[in-house]
Amino acid sequence: MKSFASDNYAGAIPEVIEALVAENKSHKPAYGNDSTTKLLEDTLSSLLEIPFKMHLVFNGTGANLFGLSCTILPYSAILCAETAHIYVDESTAPETLMGCRLIPLSVDDRGKLTMDVITRSIKRQGDLHHPQATTLSIAQPTEYGTLYTLEELQQIRAITAQHGILLHIDGARIFTAATALGCELKDIIVASGADVISIGGTKAGMLYGEAVLILNQKCMEHSSFLHKRSMQLASKNRFIAAQFLALLQHWKTYSATAINKTKQLEELLKKYASIKLTKPVEANAIFARFPPSWIKPLQEIASFYIWEEASHEVRLMCSFDTTEEELERFDKKLAQLNKDSVISNS
Amino acid sequence: MKSFASDNYAGAIPEVIEALVAENKSHKPAYGNDSTTKLLEDTLSSLLEIPFKMHLVFNGTGANLFGLSCTILPYSAILCAETAHIYVDESTAPETLMGCRLIPLSVDDRGKLTMDVITRSIKRQGDLHHPQATTLSIAQPTEYGTLYTLEELQQIRAITAQHGILLHIDGARIFTAATALGCELKDIIVASGADVISIGGTKAGMLYGEAVLILNQKCMEHSSFLHKRSMQLASKNRFIAAQFLALLQHWKTYSATAINKTKQLEELLKKYASIKLTKPVEANAIFARFPPSWIKPLQEIASFYIWEEASHEVRLMCSFDTTEEELERFDKKLAQLNKDSVISNS
Amino acid sequence: MKSFASDNYAGAIPEVIEALVAENKSHKPAYGNDSTTKLLEDTLSSLLEIPFKMHLVFNGTGANLFGLSCTILPYSAILCAETAHIYVDESTAPETLMGCRLIPLSVDDRGKLTMDVITRSIKRQGDLHHPQATTLSIAQPTEYGTLYTLEELQQIRAITAQHGILLHIDGARIFTAATALGCELKDIIVASGADVISIGGTKAGMLYGEAVLILNQKCMEHSSFLHKRSMQLASKNRFIAAQFLALLQHWKTYSATAINKTKQLEELLKKYASIKLTKPVEANAIFARFPPSWIKPLQEIASFYIWEEASHEVRLMCSFDTTEEELERFDKKLAQLNKDSVISNS
Amino acid sequence: MKSFASDNYAGAIPEVIEALVAENKSHKPAYGNDSTTKLLEDTLSSLLEIPFKMHLVFNGTGANLFGLSCTILPYSAILCAETAHIYVDESTAPETLMGCRLIPLSVDDRGKLTMDVITRSIKRQGDLHHPQATTLSIAQPTEYGTLYTLEELQQIRAITAQHGILLHIDGARIFTAATALGCELKDIIVASGADVISIGGTKAGMLYGEAVLILNQKCMEHSSFLHKRSMQLASKNRFIAAQFLALLQHWKTYSATAINKTKQLEELLKKYASIKLTKPVEANAIFARFPPSWIKPLQEIASFYIWEEASHEVRLMCSFDTTEEELERFDKKLAQLNKDSVISNS
Repeated sequence: MKSFASDNYAGAIPEVIEALVAENKSHKPAYGNDSTTKLLEDTLSSLLEIPFKMHLVFNGTGANLFGLSCTILPYSAILCAETAHIYVDESTAPETLMGCRLIPLSVDDRGKLTMDVITRSIKRQGDLHHPQATTLSIAQPTEYGTLYTLEELQQIRAITAQHGILLHIDGARIFTAATALGCELKDIIVASGADVISIGGTKAGMLYGEAVLILNQKCMEHSSFLHKRSMQLASKNRFIAAQFLALLQHWKTYSATAINKTKQLEELLKKYASIKLTKPVEANAIFARFPPSWIKPLQEIASFYIWEEASHEVRLMCSFDTTEEELERFDKKLAQLNKDSVISNS
Repeated sequence: MKSFASDNYAGAIPEVIEALVAENKSHKPAYGNDSTTKLLEDTLSSLLEIPFKMHLVFNGTGANLFGLSCTILPYSAILCAETAHIYVDESTAPETLMGCRLIPLSVDDRGKLTMDVITRSIKRQGDLHHPQATTLSIAQPTEYGTLYTLEELQQIRAITAQHGILLHIDGARIFTAATALGCELKDIIVASGADVISIGGTKAGMLYGEAVLILNQKCMEHSSFLHKRSMQLASKNRFIAAQFLALLQHWKTYSATAINKTKQLEELLKKYASIKLTKPVEANAIFARFPPSWIKPLQEIASFYIWEEASHEVRLMCSFDTTEEELERFDKKLAQLNKDSVISNS
Repeated sequence: MKSFASDNYAGAIPEVIEALVAENKSHKPAYGNDSTTKLLEDTLSSLLEIPFKMHLVFNGTGANLFGLSCTILPYSAILCAETAHIYVDESTAPETLMGCRLIPLSVDDRGKLTMDVITRSIKRQGDLHHPQATTLSIAQPTEYGTLYTLEELQQIRAITAQHGILLHIDGARIFTAATALGCELKDIIVASGADVISIGGTKAGMLYGEAVLILNQKCMEHSSFLHKRSMQLASKNRFIAAQFLALLQHWKTYSATAINKTKQLEELLKKYASIKLTKPVEANAIFARFPPSWIKPLQEIASFYIWEEASHEVRLMCSFDTTEEELERFDKKLAQLNKDSVISNS
Repeated sequence: MKSFASDNYAGAIPEVIEALVAENKSHKPAYGNDSTTKLLEDTLSSLLEIPFKMHLVFNGTGANLFGLSCTILPYSAILCAETAHIYVDESTAPETLMGCRLIPLSVDDRGKLTMDVITRSIKRQGDLHHPQATTLSIAQPTEYGTLYTLEELQQIRAITAQHGILLHIDGARIFTAATALGCELKDIIVASGADVISIGGTKAGMLYGEAVLILNQKCMEHSSFLHKRSMQLASKNRFIAAQFLALLQHWKTYSATAINKTKQLEELLKKYASIKLTKPVEANAIFARFPPSWIKPLQEIASFYIWEEASHEVRLMCSFDTTEEELERFDKKLAQLNKDSVISNS
């Protein structure tokens, strides 16, 4: 049974597995001093056309926190959404690795930070009693599957530039964002002027592995040492690189599938008046309120998260391998539940 | 070109790749709540026949430091060999994750901690001004490829028990140790009374992944939370489990190959009077002094580490896929270098 | 010129100086192993009539953070008011010392945490991805100079007990709180069931020094080691103890003076229609909005803090040595400013 | 009963108490923004004639660790003597505050680091797997009461300069060092080229308080923020400044007394053949081996530390207020013990 629980319930795209098999034919130096890693750097360099330093890591938490650790001082505050993965889903790893403050900012009804909220959160700069905001971290797409437009990213860039604050982008699903926005990775990086961005491999169809790109020259100075210190440097680093090389060739196709299936699922849910979508559907996540009595029977045929117990809000995600059959089976069950409730209400 | 540089220059054993391919056919819950992870726990449970809590992590540094973090207090000292990987090769990750002191102990000429050194290192217990030794960390095999015998492990157990200190074993190459000692994993765990042990997958022929076993009841209480906090919890955790299931079936064969090839290489080196072995060869590593002028030409046909620049000490390692051909080629080059030097000396 | 800026602009009460002079006549063991420290423990023991472990520290930040460090696990969240000193005025010292999360809770219009806010903030307990709330920290009085009543403290106790959460009280101005509530220190401790409380000496009329009382048996186990680790253990510890012994005899008189002068100042401000009190005046702090043009001329005769630039909210505090003359001078200036503005408005 | 236990068993010199009384007559701004602190800066500036940034802290551990925290990166190693206070007597506060490695270096038979030991300890620079030595910390005088000469300090300066390493001096007893060397504070700072030095007030005759001087321009950039973060910023900062102003006028007299009394005590001990001095006596500490049976009776009349239980090595210290009478009483007891043992041996 596949599921709508999360894109990390899926496995890997076939091309990633093939790349691993191919990479496994040889011995190569450890810790990234190998030709596969070099090829990935060159490939990304061609795509992005701007200078960066690349570090491969194991997982999203590692990518976020190692990346952020390249932007901070010991007395820093990191501004982030109150819903940010780094704030609500990474235990105390941020404080442990960085020893600094996370300051949660309220999000609007699309799950996004507004320019006004960001601007007002930068305060008491220069006051030694207060943690000093040095970094803003945003997720693209957000935890609610919504997107900052390129224009909004430019506005964010203007604010961070004005206040001398660095920008970190949690790109655990950045390929989905690019596809949904109809743009290239490069466009997101350039529009936002990101100082550090993570490029998520795991949720895009790799077995494991994320890339952290350091784009700010000053942040590059210490990043290799900070990488090792973060416990996220793989000895067999080249197997992450090999997966990424495959993914870079195929992400557009696979993320388009995830997004299209999500749209189909959205359309399907909209047919039922008793289901309320709670967030705009912009990438591969759907947030909705289901009739409470429907949740259990639906989870029996396809798992998904209950996002907020109290309000019966659920999250459904599609991934690169979501199929028509799954959508149809889900629809059939919905139809049946709907019919039953109409009857019981009459 | 394969190499004698490190067992992490190798790829994965074929059965590991097959297991990944098989595991990739389905969707399963993330973060270890899946049937593959459960099967690995059950399999290990049958092998070890003692209670433990299993946590899968990405790499050796993560395994060591997450594991150690389950044994300490904020004012702890961890006693370890001055040559320990955690002391010399993991940057400041130990202090970052744990905030405690590593105290380096001198090793004997086999690279091992003696009972006397361990006992004398436990001091000022109860003195609030001094970091309090709560954990002893040993590597099996050691960084010099030597082994603690089961009797020595029992002696260590007696010391740690007497002083109320916990024992951590860095088992990055624990399969090699068991094969070399002609015993089972279980024998090492039981003899040492280890409170926490890491089971190294990467160097034994996995693409990535290590298992941390918590054997002390008190250390289990917080370990799941500490696992997440260490940034070493994989979302697609099941792919580490799948690799381990394959490895558990085949480690004896593959580690025997690595050890046998190491022995062959040792015999081969012994033929040359100008090569001095500096450590006993007990597992899959050889430490030796080469004539300085030989090092460069040899590295051209097979990479290996220069362990200590000043004394021309080098390290050569064999792995599961070291071949006769490589040994022969190396021997041929040695013979030639030897002949040349005899001529030049005459 | 004295001031209304803060009670830490004042010096020490005369009896504290006398105690220092007396204590200075002898040599005594360092680090708290002395008769003066013992006498303070005995004196507090008689006053409180419940078991505790006492640790003397240098300052309020040290008292708060060392005290909190006795209550946490590495993956803890500490719940506190968004206005808490530990959240807004102690840089990143909390994260540095403890490596855990501070979660800011919104306060009501009296600057207090409501039972509802506290209860709703305790969530995702047991979820390893989320920092685990283990401690609630409140300030008595609050940063807005308001007070939790003994009944409210009992209600807080009920919530923390129900959820297995520890309670920390920042008592930087606890003597003022007790006087304002007309109760003893003991009453606050008993009502709240505090697990750790700091007893502020500096703001009550000592040169420096705070006492941290550990009331929870489990938190006592490691507290001596954590005290040293926090860098807050004085070698000449007995001089803090000597000051406290003097303060314990005289705090009621001095805090009554501070409170009475604050009430007089409040009455005086109320005479002017253009001044708006923004918080109830319950201890020795007054929060008010002044006409913008009044602030600079007033600060020329008595310093005070501008609490919020945008809204022209200021904070005025009285201390043990605030005099009638200062109040009169301030009043005279207010009268003149008021007269001028009436004229300019007419 | 006074003692030879430590100079922190003593109280304060009378001029320090007088300064506190005088300072207590006024209200002044908190956190160092006051005229007394400014006056101290100006006074030190006149004495030292080089640029520095001054931070007042509470105690020696705070001074050392805050000071060091201004010199490091997150992946730093701090090189220090294996006997250093920061290594053996400050719990895990160094790792907690800084998250970096302390690397203990062996000392010679005078308790000092040799140039050779320092040079050889700087290794694997640029190797991202290894903590990177960025700072050397020495104590002047050492923990064994011995002194680096000005020439040795210049040699240390040459090494640190050559390797781009910063120098920290733990000056908890720096006034004693200067007096013993017959030089000024300035001479020590200039000879060593110290980047950060702590000036110990507590052991020199203050109730509490140390000054940290940041001499390296780059380290100054963040020091105010790091000061607050270290929990060592006093609100009533001016009372530390006031004590220092008194001490700066009188330290030469008082440290000369401590040193002279130490010399007298040394002469006195030398009379007894069964007492062996174990370290040269260069400042105000004496290390010696006493006949085991003498220790208890001697401690009954004057406390002192047993430095090493096994070898019966003890430490005796004199302070600014050690008197002739105490020396005589100790001598009388020694004479009696000596007589008794001669009798029992005959």
